[in-house]
Amino acid sequence: MTSVLGTNQYGKAEVHMVTVSRDGALHTIRDLTVGITLSGDLADVHLTGDNAHVVPTDTQKNTVYAFAKEAPVGAIEDFGLRLGRHFVSSFAPISRARVHVAEAGWDRLGDHSFRQSGAESRVATVVCDAEENWVVSGLEGLVVLNSTDSEFAGFIEDRYTTLPATNDRVLATAVAARWRHASSSSPDWDASFEAARGLLIDTFATTYSTSLQGTLYAMADAMLTARPELAEVRMSLPNRHHYAVDLSPFGLENDNEVFHADDRPYGLIEAAVLAPDAPDAGPAWDPYPLVG
Amino acid sequence: MTSVLGTNQYGKAEVHMVTVSRDGALHTIRDLTVGITLSGDLADVHLTGDNAHVVPTDTQKNTVYAFAKEAPVGAIEDFGLRLGRHFVSSFAPISRARVHVAEAGWDRLGDHSFRQSGAESRVATVVCDAEENWVVSGLEGLVVLNSTDSEFAGFIEDRYTTLPATNDRVLATAVAARWRHASSSSPDWDASFEAARGLLIDTFATTYSTSLQGTLYAMADAMLTARPELAEVRMSLPNRHHYAVDLSPFGLENDNEVFHADDRPYGLIEAAVLAPDAPDAGPAWDPYPLVG
Amino acid sequence: MTSVLGTNQYGKAEVHMVTVSRDGALHTIRDLTVGITLSGDLADVHLTGDNAHVVPTDTQKNTVYAFAKEAPVGAIEDFGLRLGRHFVSSFAPISRARVHVAEAGWDRLGDHSFRQSGAESRVATVVCDAEENWVVSGLEGLVVLNSTDSEFAGFIEDRYTTLPATNDRVLATAVAARWRHASSSSPDWDASFEAARGLLIDTFATTYSTSLQGTLYAMADAMLTARPELAEVRMSLPNRHHYAVDLSPFGLENDNEVFHADDRPYGLIEAAVLAPDAPDAGPAWDPYPLVG
Amino acid sequence: MTSVLGTNQYGKAEVHMVTVSRDGALHTIRDLTVGITLSGDLADVHLTGDNAHVVPTDTQKNTVYAFAKEAPVGAIEDFGLRLGRHFVSSFAPISRARVHVAEAGWDRLGDHSFRQSGAESRVATVVCDAEENWVVSGLEGLVVLNSTDSEFAGFIEDRYTTLPATNDRVLATAVAARWRHASSSSPDWDASFEAARGLLIDTFATTYSTSLQGTLYAMADAMLTARPELAEVRMSLPNRHHYAVDLSPFGLENDNEVFHADDRPYGLIEAAVLAPDAPDAGPAWDPYPLVG
Repeated sequence: MTSVLGTNQYGKAEVHMVTVSRDGALHTIRDLTVGITLSGDLADVHLTGDNAHVVPTDTQKNTVYAFAKEAPVGAIEDFGLRLGRHFVSSFAPISRARVHVAEAGWDRLGDHSFRQSGAESRVATVVCDAEENWVVSGLEGLVVLNSTDSEFAGFIEDRYTTLPATNDRVLATAVAARWRHASSSSPDWDASFEAARGLLIDTFATTYSTSLQGTLYAMADAMLTARPELAEVRMSLPNRHHYAVDLSPFGLENDNEVFHADDRPYGLIEAAVLAPDAPDAGPAWDPYPLVG
Repeated sequence: MTSVLGTNQYGKAEVHMVTVSRDGALHTIRDLTVGITLSGDLADVHLTGDNAHVVPTDTQKNTVYAFAKEAPVGAIEDFGLRLGRHFVSSFAPISRARVHVAEAGWDRLGDHSFRQSGAESRVATVVCDAEENWVVSGLEGLVVLNSTDSEFAGFIEDRYTTLPATNDRVLATAVAARWRHASSSSPDWDASFEAARGLLIDTFATTYSTSLQGTLYAMADAMLTARPELAEVRMSLPNRHHYAVDLSPFGLENDNEVFHADDRPYGLIEAAVLAPDAPDAGPAWDPYPLVG
Repeated sequence: MTSVLGTNQYGKAEVHMVTVSRDGALHTIRDLTVGITLSGDLADVHLTGDNAHVVPTDTQKNTVYAFAKEAPVGAIEDFGLRLGRHFVSSFAPISRARVHVAEAGWDRLGDHSFRQSGAESRVATVVCDAEENWVVSGLEGLVVLNSTDSEFAGFIEDRYTTLPATNDRVLATAVAARWRHASSSSPDWDASFEAARGLLIDTFATTYSTSLQGTLYAMADAMLTARPELAEVRMSLPNRHHYAVDLSPFGLENDNEVFHADDRPYGLIEAAVLAPDAPDAGPAWDPYPLVG
Repeated sequence: MTSVLGTNQYGKAEVHMVTVSRDGALHTIRDLTVGITLSGDLADVHLTGDNAHVVPTDTQKNTVYAFAKEAPVGAIEDFGLRLGRHFVSSFAPISRARVHVAEAGWDRLGDHSFRQSGAESRVATVVCDAEENWVVSGLEGLVVLNSTDSEFAGFIEDRYTTLPATNDRVLATAVAARWRHASSSSPDWDASFEAARGLLIDTFATTYSTSLQGTLYAMADAMLTARPELAEVRMSLPNRHHYAVDLSPFGLENDNEVFHADDRPYGLIEAAVLAPDAPDAGPAWDPYPLVG
């Protein structure tokens, strides 16, 4: 037992909670999947079998449910902050808490009837230590496509290159985006989210693309420029390749009309883009899970 | 080699095709996943190694792409009929073709920009033989929830029963629905689909539920009553259980406000509902895949 | 409310149960996922809101757990029969029960330590009515590959054909197989399963393939010929296409050495093969789920 | 366009390649899924639309296939190193390459016939810059279970605690493990992998567990102590909860015999453990994907 314990963290993942609140006959539902991750003075649990510093993950789960009853859930950023501050302030050995919340949208069908909106979810990740909070908002599962105004040319060619340059291709991706808030900011989270998402989508739709990298930067730049509460935007954009099918064997021309939407392999384009005055990120982007 | 060949079928599954059509600068996209299944005089391919009756699945795939170029795709029912009739009329050994088409929806963001609508898809299954066609339309991935007006009581109790009767519960499901058209009908498929889907959703939202079975019947009955072109509705409804969390250990009451959305196990409720004058289903519901 | 209720069934799906039994320090585990489906005199639950004939799916789940304690689980066919007979004999309105059991394998690491064997699972589906039982055994998730001794040639060619004939290709599939037992048989289920699976695998490995259809028939025929307790074999075989990569642009030959393992689309080959004296299948293959 | 480009990387993900090599009639197959990620002087592609520094992801894919033909694939660590060094040495703008390789195992059924081993895969991640390489080996999808010799007690209790302490529980997890090699080491990768995996499994099976954290540390410590070529072990261990079913309503006792294997939520336990003399990790653990 000579090995050295390094970075470690633990918690309850994927607590899927639905809440119903009532304003007379009018109901509102929220659909949250919450993950808690705690770290701190946890060497003994690893090394000696002494669990005196462990807040059980079962208790973490209970806390999520209880907190949803004890006060209104609010924006997922606020719910994450309530939970995160609870763990770091209530338990001396716990020096850092990370709370991740994903919210699925539901459209109203009636006073108490709802339809799930789709695959897109809004997410927030909050990291709290004894004194400070870091808030990252974002979304995932937003699938978008431009059927033109996308080219890809001028790239390096070597002996393994077969891709022809193109001045017109389909550009499609499933956006996973996160934006870090300036640490002192506490905006109207819902309004900020809607504005940031709108800028992302509008920029995708209106930008002539020379590469998915260029489109990524343009989206992030538009968000950072228009929303001073944002310090940094990160995106991970799989390139959902749409290959024009070769119809010439059938005596047909394919003028970018018929595409095979391929699954794998796919390009994956990732970048962080920062406001000129972005404060240090602190632990906001610390890896989770640890083994990616 | 004394065994007897029984039911058999083969084809290409999950041809994922996206098409772009242009009206000047205004583009329209379609996102179809097509599966072909052929059957007929195929004993030799199984028994003797003679493939002379086989239309390769690769050719089936090519045909999907070529047909999308040769004429407008149209409603997925029509596209299925074009493909199905092609296979049974072009190849003597092929006596039956089943074509399944699933369409993913995309919302318009701009002239040539789109956002995928969500997890719901519209589907159609067409079966063709030499003389006749059977058309089944439907949808899947429609997730709906009622936060009240649902009870479950009066059921059988035995020594293994622990479920208490309830007069107020969350009712949620992911609808997989299919509706078979009267064989002579050839409605405006898009209008028929929208109407059928609307009836399904409206009935879910406005029906007081005594069981998911009762809700299933009510939805199907509303569709069949209002839409004479429908002969039969089938649904498979997983009961997405939402369990009220016991908050009493924390000194809190839970008046149907905080729920654990559980994954497994789940109830699964299935039924066929028919119009009084429904014609025989023929091969419309023949199993696919053969091994469920 | 003039629509006619047709085929209907309901039950609890995917009860994931692990059992531990002890022979002193030596433990044995079983890992079963059980689904129950009941049908019978259930019109009222759909039509009138009267649930007096409903055995709740929650009770079905409880019964699975209780039965595993009340007597040894035994072969999954036997466990299915115990459960199925219980439901049809205990509840007058329930005239038919279908019990599906999937077992995941675990390899022993020590007296009380185990490693999950893999993606393959053994399955059994039992259907019981008041007087009779039908037993189907099988497996799924068995992925096999032959790197030669597979050809595909002599097929129909039309204007949409681009596939060249080949006398050497990779043949790979993920086997989903079911075999129906002669209704009077009650073999040593475990021995029968091992023998049937062995025949399936051996035949795959030793058969020169002229098509996946031919390989399917050969496997089923070998099983039916050697095992008289089997009446019928059904298989669903996705063709996991391995495309030889064109390396010629890089000045390299590819003599069936480097393949792209593609995901979609894929061929799907399905057939039933019967013993010459196979009894009628009864409800053994009734569709589940109802909406495929 | 005032925003600042930060960390960025791009590449081709999930190139699924199967290779066949022949020693007379005896074939050997390899099943690799390869991901490439490049970074370097790529500001212009994001900012100006100049793609002169981009190696297209399509070319990266081609390179994987070509390299598999040009020389024997070897251990996945070696294949990753060949690919990684190629990218950083061939393209001036590319200063860092990350290559991830996952290998699926196949068991031999015959000279040219194989069965996929299961869900576990061996993985390697190689990071190369102009002068140095970092190699991380590992595995994922290894599902293990101890049916006793596991307790969990002595933890913090607060007002949200309901979990009772237990001195006997099922402990199960799906191991995702990575181990970083001392940077100067270049062991027999296959032998090193087998030894490391064996130590991990043996330690899981023979360690009395006071927490999953303690088991994690014990496994990592055993690996680091016995294998001097390892500098660091990281694991991410989901706690696959097995809850003893309450059978008392049925008049039955459950002495840890019948368990519900639950899906969500689940505990997630993660840690890094280092050899006392572990060199700096450099970029070995840099996050991928960037947005987790």
